[in-house]
Amino acid sequence: MSDPIEEGLLLAPKFDADGLVTCVATDAKSGELLMVAHMNAEALRRTVESGEAWYFSRSRKALWKKGESSGHTQRVIEMRVDCDQDTVWIKVEQNGPGACHTGRRSCFYRVVPLNQTGAIALQFRDAEKTFDPNAVYDKK
Amino acid sequence: MSDPIEEGLLLAPKFDADGLVTCVATDAKSGELLMVAHMNAEALRRTVESGEAWYFSRSRKALWKKGESSGHTQRVIEMRVDCDQDTVWIKVEQNGPGACHTGRRSCFYRVVPLNQTGAIALQFRDAEKTFDPNAVYDKK
Repeated sequence: MSDPIEEGLLLAPKFDADGLVTCVATDAKSGELLMVAHMNAEALRRTVESGEAWYFSRSRKALWKKGESSGHTQRVIEMRVDCDQDTVWIKVEQNGPGACHTGRRSCFYRVVPLNQTGAIALQFRDAEKTFDPNAVYDKK
Repeated sequence: MSDPIEEGLLLAPKFDADGLVTCVATDAKSGELLMVAHMNAEALRRTVESGEAWYFSRSRKALWKKGESSGHTQRVIEMRVDCDQDTVWIKVEQNGPGACHTGRRSCFYRVVPLNQTGAIALQFRDAEKTFDPNAVYDKK
């Protein structure tokens, strides 16, 4: 018997103890990795129903539509789920100049050098700021 | 003052309550998303030191060198860390025919159709098996 989670056609997300799955967002055109975040059942449902990316913020403990503050929404071109259904992958059309709250296109703007031991010094890569986060996000 | 975690050059991984960070592995040549797994501090250290991917299995609660059973190791071409340092991204050279334990190149072989409500029927995509997992993995 094949495993229905792995080989079946029913979406049955394996939420973790906090009720979350991991979500990887890549740029639908370039394939670039933009960000990794989390979805609870409600965020996943809203994303599937609307075709716009919704997440669940672990730090703010709140449902969150990507771009609700910044205007930098993500239109989902394709969604996939992985073998054990604890991760979803969305290929998105990123509206606006970037996905990262630091003001960059992608959250992955630092390289970890390999073949090293001890404390690691990161190196900036593709780290240019494409927008000013202070101008885009509400100050509370 | 800029946030040292986000704008600094010291690798300071933000491990979760279980001592893990998320790791996204993509094919260094094609950019294809291969798998998403987790690393504890030891897996991360071994990956950085050796340039070969090590993970921590949440289900088996064990450190795990990718390919130790299957031979399908991953040579890390580049590693990056995200803004808040709770996710690493490795671009890898995947040895052998695939990264997924189900016998496929990638773990993401099913599409979640969008703009739907209710129960979701997945669709296979890029789902051809590239190896026979029964032949590759030890039977216990």
